[in-house]
Formats: sequence, C-alpha cells, structure tokens
Amino acid sequence: MKIIEPRTLKGFRDIFSDEIIAREEIVSKIKRVYESYGFSPLATPALEYRDILVGYGEEANKQIYTFRDPDGSGVGLRYDLTSPLSRVIAQYKNLEMPFRRYQIQEVYRYDKPDKGRFREFLQFDIDTVGTSSVIADAEIIAAMYQSIEALGVSGFKIRVNNRKILEELIRFSGIEPTLSISVFRVVDKLDKLGLDAVLAELGDGRTDASGAEIRGLRLKKQQIDRVKEFIMLPRKNRKEALQSVTSILGDCEGIEELREIDGYLEGLGIDEDKVVIDFVVARGLDYYTGPVYEAILTDAPRYGSVMGGGRYDRLIGQFAGVDIPATGASIGVDRLVSAMQKLGLVKGRKNNIDVLITVMVKDKLVEYNRLALKLRENNINTEVYIGEGGIGKQLKYADKKEIPIALLIGEDEFQEGVVSVKDLKAKERAEKEIGDRRKWLEARIGQRKVKTSKIVTEIKNILNQK
Amino acid sequence: MKIIEPRTLKGFRDIFSDEIIAREEIVSKIKRVYESYGFSPLATPALEYRDILVGYGEEANKQIYTFRDPDGSGVGLRYDLTSPLSRVIAQYKNLEMPFRRYQIQEVYRYDKPDKGRFREFLQFDIDTVGTSSVIADAEIIAAMYQSIEALGVSGFKIRVNNRKILEELIRFSGIEPTLSISVFRVVDKLDKLGLDAVLAELGDGRTDASGAEIRGLRLKKQQIDRVKEFIMLPRKNRKEALQSVTSILGDCEGIEELREIDGYLEGLGIDEDKVVIDFVVARGLDYYTGPVYEAILTDAPRYGSVMGGGRYDRLIGQFAGVDIPATGASIGVDRLVSAMQKLGLVKGRKNNIDVLITVMVKDKLVEYNRLALKLRENNINTEVYIGEGGIGKQLKYADKKEIPIALLIGEDEFQEGVVSVKDLKAKERAEKEIGDRRKWLEARIGQRKVKTSKIVTEIKNILNQK
Repeated sequence: MKIIEPRTLKGFRDIFSDEIIAREEIVSKIKRVYESYGFSPLATPALEYRDILVGYGEEANKQIYTFRDPDGSGVGLRYDLTSPLSRVIAQYKNLEMPFRRYQIQEVYRYDKPDKGRFREFLQFDIDTVGTSSVIADAEIIAAMYQSIEALGVSGFKIRVNNRKILEELIRFSGIEPTLSISVFRVVDKLDKLGLDAVLAELGDGRTDASGAEIRGLRLKKQQIDRVKEFIMLPRKNRKEALQSVTSILGDCEGIEELREIDGYLEGLGIDEDKVVIDFVVARGLDYYTGPVYEAILTDAPRYGSVMGGGRYDRLIGQFAGVDIPATGASIGVDRLVSAMQKLGLVKGRKNNIDVLITVMVKDKLVEYNRLALKLRENNINTEVYIGEGGIGKQLKYADKKEIPIALLIGEDEFQEGVVSVKDLKAKERAEKEIGDRRKWLEARIGQRKVKTSKIVTEIKNILNQK
Repeated sequence: MKIIEPRTLKGFRDIFSDEIIAREEIVSKIKRVYESYGFSPLATPALEYRDILVGYGEEANKQIYTFRDPDGSGVGLRYDLTSPLSRVIAQYKNLEMPFRRYQIQEVYRYDKPDKGRFREFLQFDIDTVGTSSVIADAEIIAAMYQSIEALGVSGFKIRVNNRKILEELIRFSGIEPTLSISVFRVVDKLDKLGLDAVLAELGDGRTDASGAEIRGLRLKKQQIDRVKEFIMLPRKNRKEALQSVTSILGDCEGIEELREIDGYLEGLGIDEDKVVIDFVVARGLDYYTGPVYEAILTDAPRYGSVMGGGRYDRLIGQFAGVDIPATGASIGVDRLVSAMQKLGLVKGRKNNIDVLITVMVKDKLVEYNRLALKLRENNINTEVYIGEGGIGKQLKYADKKEIPIALLIGEDEFQEGVVSVKDLKAKERAEKEIGDRRKWLEARIGQRKVKTSKIVTEIKNILNQK
C-alpha cells in the first residue's frame, strides 16, 4: 500500500472539539446581541473573481490566494468579508436600505504564519450600508459594547475617533496631505510604543528593540510639536476630549459627528470609562472616511484590538459606480477566543457528552442502548462505549474525554434493576487524597447504586452540581 | 472611477438571511441529536495538499479545484469531509478510539452547475472511526432516524444494505468480479428507473428519454436472471428480507451483520416501515466495504437520498499504513433544506427581527434607542429605523423585511406616555378585505395605543400569537 503522508499546509490547522465548543459559545453570545439590533445573516462564496478581492493596496493584494480555475477564470480565496459585502450591495438592486448584515466566515491570507496567526481564520463582521447618519456608527459601537458585556468581560475599553479629525490635524500641523495615512499609522502606535518612539518615527526615525532601523517621516520640528500637542490633549472623559480638541482645531465636521455619537451613547447610559474618545486611534486600513472604533480587553492587552472598524463611504462605489455610505466592525474570532481562554472566561469543555455507558456484558448491547435512548430523550447526551476492552479501559476513555459520568451495569445490576453511577468529577476532589490516577479509577469513589427508574433524576442532579 | 462589475462565479452563490435561518434551524436540530449520541465537532482546513484529496478515482479527481499556492505547493480545495477525517486520524496519534466526530463545512467540486447543484455546498458528516463492530453502523442509522424525526418529517425511509451481500450476488451470478461496481451502480437505479431499464442496462443497453444511448454491461441472460431474482426478493419487513436473501445466497458475513443491525434497531423500537432492508442500495462510492444506508423523504422523492453513507474499512489505510475501520453518514445540507422548504417544514423567516421602531421625531433619537435597549434586554430583537424617509416609507420597509411589529411614537405619544403598536401580521387578515397593500399601510388596521410601561408584555403577546 502506497502511504500518503498525513499533514496540513503551513499556516492551516485542524480545530478540535474543545476549541470549537469555546468558539461557538462566544460566537453565539455575540450573535444574539447583533440579532437583537436587527442584523441578519449573509454568506458569500469562498471563491470570487480576482478583481472583486483586490483593491486594498499592494501589500494586501500580495496576500490574496489567487489562481486560475478550471474554467480559466482568474479567481481568489476570500480575503475579508468587506469586499464581498460591497459586491453584494452593488449586485442586487432590490436590497432594502439601510442593509444590516452579519457574516461569520473564514478568510484566507498568504501571511507569515506565527503563533496564533494562521492563513485561514474566522471573521465575524457586522455592517450597516446605505446611510451616512453617524447613528449607524453609534449603534455599532453600542452593539460591540453589549456583546463584550454579554461575554462576561468586565475589563475592556472601546476607543472611538474620527478620520476627519485626523485629517484636520494634518491641515492644522501643515503636513503634506500625501503623508496623512503614514502619520495616522505612526500616531496609532502610541499605546503600544509610547510617546518618545512615536515622536521619533514622525521625525528622524529610531532603532527598535531588535536593532532594526525604523525610518522616520522626517516632519519638521514645528509639525511634530503640533502633532504632539494633539495627541497629548486632555481627555479624561468624552466631553473633555471633545472640548479640548475643539480648542485647538476649532469646530469641524469630525468633532460634530463625535458629539452626536457621544449624545447617543450617553442617552443609552454607556459608561464613560468603557467607551472613550481617543484621538490617536486610526485603524490601519486606507479606506476609512469617518468614525473609527476598536475594542481592547484591558486585562489581556497583549491581544491588541479584538474588535474594530469604522465608516467607509467610498469603498462600495468601486462596484456600484456611485458612492454608497457604509460602516461596520469586524471581530477576529480566533484571537478573541484565545484572549477569552487566557482570561478564564470560557468553560472550555472538551466535548458535550454527559454520560458514558460502559459495556460490561456484550450480549446486552440492546439493553445498554435502550437506556441510552431514554437518557437522550431526557436531553442527556449519552455515548455507549463501542470499542474493545474491559471496564478499566472504558473508564480511562471516559476520563481522557472528560465525560463527567460513567454508568456501570453488570449481570448483578441487571438482575437487581439498578445502575452503578460513577461521578467522574468526584475524582478531582478525591485525587488529592489518593494521588494516583490509576488507583482512583479502580477505586469506587463517587460511585453509588441507583434504581434504574431513578437514573435520569440522579444524573441531572450530578450535572447540575457543576 | 473605474467600476468593477459585481458578479459571482458560475456555480457559486450568495446566501441570504431567509435561507441561512432555515439552514441553521435544520442543522441545529440534527446537531442536537448527533451530540446526544456522543459525536463531537471537528473542523479541517479548506485547503489541503493535493495528494490528501485525490484517490476516489479519475472522475472525482477531475472535480477537485487544484492549484499551486504561493509557496509552490500543489494544493486543492476540500472535496469532501471524509478524506480530511482520514488524514486527521492518521496524523494525530493520541486520539481516543473509537473516535466519533461530526463536521459541518463547505466542500468544493468543479461539477456541472445546475438548478440546485452548486460548486460550493455545505456538508454535514458524522463518522465513527476505530471499530469494526456493526453496532457503530447501527448507531449511525439510529441517529439518522432520530434526526429526521427531530426535523418533524413523518414520511421518510432509511434503506439499509451491505456491500458484502452485493459481493455475494456477483459470486452467485457468476459475474466477472471486475464488473462488480458497475453492476452495483446499475442495480442501485432500480427505484429511479424501474426494473426494465435496469435489466436493459445489465444487458444490451437502452435509449433514455432524451434519446441518448446508455451502454449495457452485456451480462449473459443467465447472469441477468440471477440478478433479477436477487432484486425481486420478497422483503416486506427486515426479517423477511433477511430470510429470503439467505434462501438464495446461503448464510454469509454480510447477512450476519445485517441481522445484528436489525436486532439492535428492533431493541430500540425503530419502526419496520421506516428502516428497511433493501438489497439494491449500493451508494455510488467505490470505497464502501460493509453496511451502506441512505435516507429518502418519501413525500419529496425527487430530491433523492438526503442522507447516506456506509462502512469504509480501507480508506484510512492509505494515510495510516494500516487499515483502520470506519463508518459514517453524510448530509447534503442544501438539498435537505430545499426538500424541507418544499414540504413546508421550515418556518422560513426572512430575518430574526421582532420589532421595527419607526422614527417620527428626529431629535428624539436617543429616546427611541432607549426604548430599543429596553426591548432588547427583554429578548425582543429590535431594529431602530436609521434611514431616510417618512412613516410610509418606514412601514413599507418593515413590510418588505417581514418584521411583524412596528412601533410608532410621535410628539403626541411622547407626551401621553404611550406607544402606537402596529401588528403587521394583522394585514394578512385585513388584506383580503382591503385588497390594496398601500391602503393597508396607511390605514390603522391592527394598530392600538399601549402605555409605554406595558409595551414589553404587549409585544410578547403579539409574538406568541403566531
């Protein structure tokens, strides 16, 4: 037999039940919040014509998996969920506007794989298309806020800014407009790098910790001073931030929009400490045109922004021919799941199995399965052991799969009309005393006989203990 | 502005909320049953090394989307969920056996697109790996049975056979073993084509309805007679089927296995009319080695088999180097969803929105949203209208999106502390009388004023009516 070596591609991975269960727990909580705001699901193909996907700049284009399909068409794997949405909006003329959708699908990027960074990963986006009202932005911020709360995270911060204010900064500082995006990107690193590094990158450049040379933007001292003044603006709360930025830039559209968002958030009682205005936030993408926002988990800051987005009023135009305003946020699900696991905020079960029925008398398989059927009808997830091996092996199997309850029914039990119930969680308590896993498995700790007629109640009691 | 034409690739499609909601309803019901049997989720990459995917024969290989990735590796898009599972089993040495997993992912096939046939479609598989006990097969049949029941389908049939019995038929009929698979495929068409066409295809061939020539297998008359005797065997119920097949083939391993499966199904009280033994069932794939099974919805027969599978004890060996027994079933989700929709067995909501709050007084946006927040906290999915346009346009929006309830709050209502509630489902009753949709929208049918403090109760009452 010719053997094919079993292996996955670099940057791709298999996802096992424990992680899928954690992921689904998180995704379903966020989905419930998003649906409560009136967002509806959409799915688009993994494969698109290449020209639909490109257009975020050279750097991004290089990361798209492109090839010729058997029809000879130039195609590519979905790079994000925003360009397919833009295509959809332009393609279907009868969509009700404003169009709000959520979308949960994998995206593909030929990026350098690293710990926690994969070439296939799950994104979860919401977007509102067809209105330029910043209420749409405020709503997305509120939905982000509520979904993080729904996850049970208390330490988080949503930082809000407006690209239009950053554009004003460029004017105010007398910086060459072609440098705008570069200045935004440097300023955005303030929290990560600190003030000195940012100022150095605006000026002559610097050497980073690894010894690499980072080229500076070579702004004039006077320009850098103005940027510094801007990023140091007092902003204890949203109101103060708005006042102080007005004091140096004067009133402008960007500030007016943030004021409206602030009013909305205030009306909803959204915490000043949790949703803050922060003038350095820019978000990396070129296409943002208005409010931008991102969420960080303050107890797990090294995961960076776990949700983020902004308004992009000109992106859909490249498909539609006319500008269609839009705003939205994206979640990198895998990163969020990692952060939540780190914070101990997901249950992280290995599987959803409640009970293993061990098989001690082979010719009673039908009886074991009849019991299983009864448990399943009572919403108890039940596996009947169908492999080889005696009771010791079967209990080890339950232990490894972290199944909380094992049922033991031998000839005696069948005759008596009872079931031996083994509470495998009791081992965690017992193990400290016994010390040895093997001894525990053989011992009868957490094991008791229960009448077959009472078995459902008994199992539910054990399951509810946790 | 250079415009990119918005379009999808041939055989690929966008999936909108109504279909996603129907799909999720169906998938989650089946998932609950599968989990109750102890199956746990697994996910594998969309992209694999090409050699992992090929191996189902020339025909299948031509349908795999293959290309070179930027690393220069020969890769392909996932063709099914069985070969990735086989790879996983061989790749990870510490998996607990028997290993039971379910997997719900898209697969990609460069096939001829047709009505309801796409090049990207969702599969939902369960498999049990690591035991040759036919109890594993019986369990999958039982899980299929229960999941179809959980879907609320009453008219269905699960047909069970064994490839080993078909192999016996070849021996019994004196047919050249190299023709086995071809004979199985012809016999499998009995239900679709009828006896005459099957006998013709075993013999000299035939001309089909479209006038196309179907080549026959050119078996001898005596061989065809034996096959005919076999497929005409009396099989009123499972016991009779087993008896009659034994009467012509004698006892053999395949019959013995079906007998064990029958005993198991009988013990679980699984209906003789619903799970039948049918000797013509073969399933198309070459790799099956034992029991095979498939489910059809008898009220929607033109959708063909909606679930099906079988035992494949030699497939994993090509990765593992030693044979590892396995059995499993696959659901073509899109086909099942279509059939369920056809049968009127899915609710088929357009979205999950319960309430639209219309905006009549622009400067009270915060108040509208505060009300929305209250409804959301009470598990009522609420959209606040954030587009342009007056009340007429907003009600039309609710109507098109099939949102069941609209709330109207103008200056008067704010002052009185009331909300006008419009039950948009009442239109279905009223429309017959009024006839004109526009008139209905303007009329006040199904509309009443409710105290703001009572609004949650009122809305829940309306929602529970349906």
